[in-house]
Amino acid sequence: MSRLDAQIRFILEADRLKTISRRSLLTDGSRQENSAEHSWHFALSLMVLEEHGRDLNIDLFHAVKLAIVHDIVEIDAGDTYVYDTSGMATQLERERSAAKRIFGLLPPDQEAEFHKLFEEYEAQATAEARFAAVVDRLCPVLLNFANRGKSWADHGVTATQVRARNLPVMSTAPEIHDYVARLIDEAVERSYIAP
Amino acid sequence: MSRLDAQIRFILEADRLKTISRRSLLTDGSRQENSAEHSWHFALSLMVLEEHGRDLNIDLFHAVKLAIVHDIVEIDAGDTYVYDTSGMATQLERERSAAKRIFGLLPPDQEAEFHKLFEEYEAQATAEARFAAVVDRLCPVLLNFANRGKSWADHGVTATQVRARNLPVMSTAPEIHDYVARLIDEAVERSYIAP
Repeated sequence: MSRLDAQIRFILEADRLKTISRRSLLTDGSRQENSAEHSWHFALSLMVLEEHGRDLNIDLFHAVKLAIVHDIVEIDAGDTYVYDTSGMATQLERERSAAKRIFGLLPPDQEAEFHKLFEEYEAQATAEARFAAVVDRLCPVLLNFANRGKSWADHGVTATQVRARNLPVMSTAPEIHDYVARLIDEAVERSYIAP
Repeated sequence: MSRLDAQIRFILEADRLKTISRRSLLTDGSRQENSAEHSWHFALSLMVLEEHGRDLNIDLFHAVKLAIVHDIVEIDAGDTYVYDTSGMATQLERERSAAKRIFGLLPPDQEAEFHKLFEEYEAQATAEARFAAVVDRLCPVLLNFANRGKSWADHGVTATQVRARNLPVMSTAPEIHDYVARLIDEAVERSYIAP
């Protein structure tokens, strides 16, 4: 098998990410978002919001690569809802097995590159991974607010939970942190979310 | 309105790209692909296939930006099927109006940046735009082959049309060109597409 054959086999397998549902609904509330379209929205949002990172020297392409690659493991592991405590406990193990199988379809040098991106995002030890995490968490909050909290209500999520989950991470981007803090307050006022 | 407010308004508007249907079906044939998830698959494929471009000095991030941004205009203009001659005749005009409205939601510097990316892809005058076009056209051919030509059959598209549309563009990446030429031959042999 040539390198190109292996690469195309991987690209076809990655297509399945389009069938993995997340808990967030689209802004119009019409259906659940899938992980592939989220990855695009996440990458686009990184491009638009770059200036708001505390560390202004981040390598934006590196952050975009993290956005494009890190959810691919959900093809095998599924999307784990951030407010699902038992799912979160086994998430890394399930996702690492998935990474082994799926990235293993690529030629060895690219397999290593994609594994490294996946592990870097998990470890949250680089400025790029931390800024990407801010934007990854911002996206569903924006969608949930836009559709008037439908998926927060569907899953019994409270404002206290959203604040605890998001605001510490978002201190990497102070202006985004403050924006989200105000948005959650407004969501409570409008009864989009329980306090 | 602050820059961040304008940026978030744009990000929320961009969410609608997830509701724009393309003619291609997913590899499993279960439903039509949407333009947002295609943009992700396209960006990922650029990362994986970079080495196959004839010009090895391309700025990969620039090509990825083209992939992430250039379909956003379909929110207003819809996806124009490449084999729809009358749609193709008005496509650029419709897409430019869309670009004006949608990119106009961004702060002026980013509006200008996104307009430039959109026009660059249309003009096909840079190595990045040409390599991106190869991969943009490769993706639906791979999906259509994987689902046994269902959307080719649904729209009465022939192998002659696919060759005429794709192979000249793909000369920018000779190995991909040859791969697709063989794939179309095989699609004819397997009766996935009419000759």
